[in-house]
Amino acid sequence: MSGGVVVLTGGVGGAKLVDGLYRSLPAGTLSAIVNTGDDFSHLGLPISPDIDSLLYLLSGQSNRELGWGREGETWSFMAALKSLGGPDWFRLGDGDLALHILRAEAFRAGEALSEITDRIARAWSLQLAVYPMSDTPVATWLETSEGRLSFQDYFVARQCRPKVSALAYEGAALARPPAAALKALQEARTIIVAPSNPWLSVAPILAVPSIRAALQARTAPAVAVSPLVRGKAVKGPTAKLMDELGLAANNHSIAAVYAGLIDAMIVHDGDDAPDSLPVAYANTLMSNEADRIRVAQAALEMAAKIAK
Amino acid sequence: MSGGVVVLTGGVGGAKLVDGLYRSLPAGTLSAIVNTGDDFSHLGLPISPDIDSLLYLLSGQSNRELGWGREGETWSFMAALKSLGGPDWFRLGDGDLALHILRAEAFRAGEALSEITDRIARAWSLQLAVYPMSDTPVATWLETSEGRLSFQDYFVARQCRPKVSALAYEGAALARPPAAALKALQEARTIIVAPSNPWLSVAPILAVPSIRAALQARTAPAVAVSPLVRGKAVKGPTAKLMDELGLAANNHSIAAVYAGLIDAMIVHDGDDAPDSLPVAYANTLMSNEADRIRVAQAALEMAAKIAK
Repeated sequence: MSGGVVVLTGGVGGAKLVDGLYRSLPAGTLSAIVNTGDDFSHLGLPISPDIDSLLYLLSGQSNRELGWGREGETWSFMAALKSLGGPDWFRLGDGDLALHILRAEAFRAGEALSEITDRIARAWSLQLAVYPMSDTPVATWLETSEGRLSFQDYFVARQCRPKVSALAYEGAALARPPAAALKALQEARTIIVAPSNPWLSVAPILAVPSIRAALQARTAPAVAVSPLVRGKAVKGPTAKLMDELGLAANNHSIAAVYAGLIDAMIVHDGDDAPDSLPVAYANTLMSNEADRIRVAQAALEMAAKIAK
Repeated sequence: MSGGVVVLTGGVGGAKLVDGLYRSLPAGTLSAIVNTGDDFSHLGLPISPDIDSLLYLLSGQSNRELGWGREGETWSFMAALKSLGGPDWFRLGDGDLALHILRAEAFRAGEALSEITDRIARAWSLQLAVYPMSDTPVATWLETSEGRLSFQDYFVARQCRPKVSALAYEGAALARPPAAALKALQEARTIIVAPSNPWLSVAPILAVPSIRAALQARTAPAVAVSPLVRGKAVKGPTAKLMDELGLAANNHSIAAVYAGLIDAMIVHDGDDAPDSLPVAYANTLMSNEADRIRVAQAALEMAAKIAK
């Protein structure tokens, strides 16, 4: 993956840009470094929501209707679980369980998250490298109006309703990114930051010291695609969170949070542009494959333009 | 459950008689002590096939077409597992996974098999006591023409094809039956042995020393329903196994294997009758609920007849 394109990404939203990059670039030249701050254990199964969303989308298995999970998913497990009085706040599809059960097996056998992730990507014939940001656990915690909450408690169980005052990425300081991920980043020709939530999805990646250091020492151009469209996120709590953290929900704030780590930004047509770095405009809404390729190419073109 | 009816049973076949007893007796007066020699761990999940078959059948959730598993089951998990290169020799239905995943959770929380089994039975409103024969692991092993095989390897993966020369019930000597199961057995008014495979399903229960001792010391009448119908088992490898073990596939052999542990037998209409103990004839084929009640009542009537 030397001299390739490296994208930092969270789940659903960011995965769309990764898909656009994947379809725009030669096979085997793209690496995704994926947030694992949302990872958690549920019913004894290790869940990696962002990695799974990316794998499902890239392999053409994602559920378009739900916006998460697998296409054509069935829900017999949840129904039976409910009949047994089991917890039903986190919905696990029947087919989706295979990923988590095999990952649990892999962990018991001493495999690292990066190894089992790579095996899954290969089983589904994906021709890119999908790296967890860390092979050791990192957990995003939120200080909120309802106390200190884990990511899933905030995001799924409470549907982002609590007011957030601060975030912490537990374990990030000691996180161990896969060596190949760091190498890909250090040798990248282009670095892209996906339009994922900067605080919930990208910040955990940037909180890993060796990843942050590699970004700071980059020679490759780094381009972020703004997650904002007319001051709102396409999906998810980005704007609400910015407001609660005392930040204006605009691209100045996005540029500020990435200061020193990116060289340019793609912002949505007609939106405000930060004056601290080069900006290109694009329609960043990604409803279909053509959209995803369009946004990916805007980011790649911007990177080519500012390179050297 | 004091002074109640206790039935010793394996899975699918025996469960039919348990169902007949359950529907023939006042609520709360039946206890089933269930074989756990087939229990195993698969993909990190603890599977108790005989307990599960019984719970599904009694709660009206069993799959009549398959003869095992859940009615209306879906198979998305197996399809996804296969796409990931996972093992597919043991079929786990989507809804069925709920049982195993909750049981794994219970074990991690330090619950015993008897406790989680009881919780499941209550969740499904069953009004009988379902006891595993042991809260510690017991594993049925088979010496065969293809080497020493675990039960599932023999029964599922190799579909009972290897020739069996001997059986062993590993862990039976140290097995710990739930105290309530032993108490129910000691205080039983009637003891029934279900028409399960005597070597594969009932023998593991009888290999538990405290259960065997309680049976030997019984004052209650114990009645076995023969698993043979015209020298064959209704389902499964009973006759094949008897042949391989050098036993004639008739009710003399069945009476011999239970010698000292039962007082009477129900045999299929027109079949041979052992002369070592009282016998009643009945049509022991159980295709529907009426059949199951008929056979259950034949066993209960025989027990009443020989009592004191």
